[in-house]
Amino acid sequence: MNPIKVGICGLGTVGGGTLNVLRDNVEVISARAQASLQVVHVGARRDNPDCDLANIRVSRDIFEVAHDPEVEILVELIGGTSVARELVEAAIVSGKHVVTANKALIAVHGNEIFALAEKHGVEVRYEAAIAGGIPIVKALREGLAGNRIEWLAGIINGTGNFILTEMRDKGREFSDVLAEAQALGYAEADPTFDVEGIDAAHKLVILASLAFGIPLKFDAVYTEGITELTTQDVGYALELGYIIKHLGIAKQHAEGVELRVHPTLIPDHLLLSDVDGVKNAVLVEGSAVGPTLYYGAGAGAQPTASAVVADLVDLARNFGVEQSNRVPALGIAQSSLRDLPIIPMANIETPWYLRMEVADKPGVLSRVASIFSEQGISIEALIQKAPAEGQTLVSLIVLTNKAPQGSVDTAVGGIEALDAISGKVTRIRVEALDG
Amino acid sequence: MNPIKVGICGLGTVGGGTLNVLRDNVEVISARAQASLQVVHVGARRDNPDCDLANIRVSRDIFEVAHDPEVEILVELIGGTSVARELVEAAIVSGKHVVTANKALIAVHGNEIFALAEKHGVEVRYEAAIAGGIPIVKALREGLAGNRIEWLAGIINGTGNFILTEMRDKGREFSDVLAEAQALGYAEADPTFDVEGIDAAHKLVILASLAFGIPLKFDAVYTEGITELTTQDVGYALELGYIIKHLGIAKQHAEGVELRVHPTLIPDHLLLSDVDGVKNAVLVEGSAVGPTLYYGAGAGAQPTASAVVADLVDLARNFGVEQSNRVPALGIAQSSLRDLPIIPMANIETPWYLRMEVADKPGVLSRVASIFSEQGISIEALIQKAPAEGQTLVSLIVLTNKAPQGSVDTAVGGIEALDAISGKVTRIRVEALDG
Repeated sequence: MNPIKVGICGLGTVGGGTLNVLRDNVEVISARAQASLQVVHVGARRDNPDCDLANIRVSRDIFEVAHDPEVEILVELIGGTSVARELVEAAIVSGKHVVTANKALIAVHGNEIFALAEKHGVEVRYEAAIAGGIPIVKALREGLAGNRIEWLAGIINGTGNFILTEMRDKGREFSDVLAEAQALGYAEADPTFDVEGIDAAHKLVILASLAFGIPLKFDAVYTEGITELTTQDVGYALELGYIIKHLGIAKQHAEGVELRVHPTLIPDHLLLSDVDGVKNAVLVEGSAVGPTLYYGAGAGAQPTASAVVADLVDLARNFGVEQSNRVPALGIAQSSLRDLPIIPMANIETPWYLRMEVADKPGVLSRVASIFSEQGISIEALIQKAPAEGQTLVSLIVLTNKAPQGSVDTAVGGIEALDAISGKVTRIRVEALDG
Repeated sequence: MNPIKVGICGLGTVGGGTLNVLRDNVEVISARAQASLQVVHVGARRDNPDCDLANIRVSRDIFEVAHDPEVEILVELIGGTSVARELVEAAIVSGKHVVTANKALIAVHGNEIFALAEKHGVEVRYEAAIAGGIPIVKALREGLAGNRIEWLAGIINGTGNFILTEMRDKGREFSDVLAEAQALGYAEADPTFDVEGIDAAHKLVILASLAFGIPLKFDAVYTEGITELTTQDVGYALELGYIIKHLGIAKQHAEGVELRVHPTLIPDHLLLSDVDGVKNAVLVEGSAVGPTLYYGAGAGAQPTASAVVADLVDLARNFGVEQSNRVPALGIAQSSLRDLPIIPMANIETPWYLRMEVADKPGVLSRVASIFSEQGISIEALIQKAPAEGQTLVSLIVLTNKAPQGSVDTAVGGIEALDAISGKVTRIRVEALDG
């Protein structure tokens, strides 16, 4: 059986997992790849005690792997965007295929990397970059190839989803759960990428490019994290029949594309509402197939390695095949991508969840209602809570029908100016996700 | 752009849907296929008023399509197993690739068909045969290629799932819901294939072959339908925290493979428990990735057409590629399939739900308990209902821990022989599906 020579750069969690999966499942992998995948060179600053590197060349300088003439596929698992980009481009220029789990790299530099790969007749695969082991890239690029993708919505950051699940189920506050997630190793010491939505935005922009055939536009994603969410709002949402999830949402319209990451109220009867803890799921609405959902582990050594190895098997099956017979990185050739406009958030209409703290006295509700009415915003549901013992303020929760952000901004401005209102109005978008 | 010439046999729901999807989404499909998919010949006994057949050759004899030298890919959508087999084999022998939505054909004659295709250097694709538009074949064959698949469990018959959902949510009886499903067009006039589990068994055997790399063994599947299920049991299951689903289950062990289709109690907190109505879902446990789930429409013109077109796009992308670079029908070459033993049902251990109608008098429970104990079966939970007004019989529901069918058979025999027991003991398997 023809061996295919693989180089792996980065020997952390995912690198170690990949070596182990390749070794543990060597029999099924060889049968499926119709070739043996042989790791011949590892580039890593230090060894990983969980990995057996017998008979594998090890370099401390990862670029040795990119320049090793024996290596046919380079697996980039070092993370980050600058050195990783240099490494991947060096491999491409040397005529090597590339597999990467690096969402930031693809989201930010993917256009240039894919173009370079096309020029050099090699492939760049990145199934592991989105939603860990869930084969969502393959589903969008190949499995749903007969569909215009109308929209997709995903829980694509496990750390954030773990935090929201704990807040909902145990009534714990954000900061408390974040500290636990860090202790459990679900969240990084610097959790910014996870809790501010940047990680989800990286993944969303790749999903959107696959779905709609557009160039990668990381800078165009509206990104809002979960740091401002309170257990109070999580609880009120439940009362109204909604679960708050941190979603990446991409929609295609005649006039352009929506790209946004933010906390979202979704109906509690949806399958997506039941995706809890560190799990990921992506709901995709196709013009022919309707809604489909893909669920599984979004991170972790073994699940991410599962996706890396699937890419290696795909590349192995395709060894020696002409460029024109290969599936392009985004499902269509770089030259066929369409640069659709991104719709500004102010024009995006959704229902809204609004919470305000109001003085418990007559006439306030009618003033609030008339401000909504002036902006053409209709009210779907409203809860006014009884004041807590010794309090003069009560929570007023309003669920609106669809309204553009512009109108809501104006209404909220008017409401916040009322004497009877204390502090800011909390605003969270609502999505029915029903087609 | 190079046109690829497609012939379609069968112009019913799915055939019409396929023509329409190819026309409606022509732009995205051509971009993804990097070729235009041109339907040049349709074989159908009669026209379909929903289809525009302008510029398409139409034959009443479907074999004209198989012998048409212009046709490069034949799409078989006529159903059934005898004529369909002849048609598909004629197309293969003529050097045409084949796409089919026919699960019975693949389940029953797939081994011969795949071998013939391999011999003639063409491909047979069947994504649409299982779970409609959900790209589960691709997920198992390619997306999870790095995993040993441990087990899978699927809701793979929409009609059955619709009936069970209605029985649970509305307390309706089986026969009543079946009549409605027939009126709605979800169930055939002859519902045998759906309600007796044969359709699910067709799909399960294909999933198992993909998952484990074994030849197709339709005759080896244990198949039990939903016709004997009562709303009473559906309700008691709910009380115990379980949902009854009609599942296809395949598991791999050191000693062989389990293949079974039957009603199953599954914990109500699982995502699979929330898959309702005519929807399908498949839960797959991979050695590296852990559990992943794939959900969507399992039938219908457009969803099935979505899968047919995905196969066409895959074939188009591969046009001119050597056989050795193509993905084999079952993910590995026919010669690499392993003929693993099928484990007899008597040896398969699961927990059990048992319901018996017992005389409401002292000593009965202890006699039942001692029979379980003699067979080494431990009891996980037990409910004894109060007798209905004027009744002397009460329902006794027992949830056992894991026990082989053989021991349960013996215990049930002993219980049914007791004077205090009226009629037969109802038995339903339980699955935790937790890894």
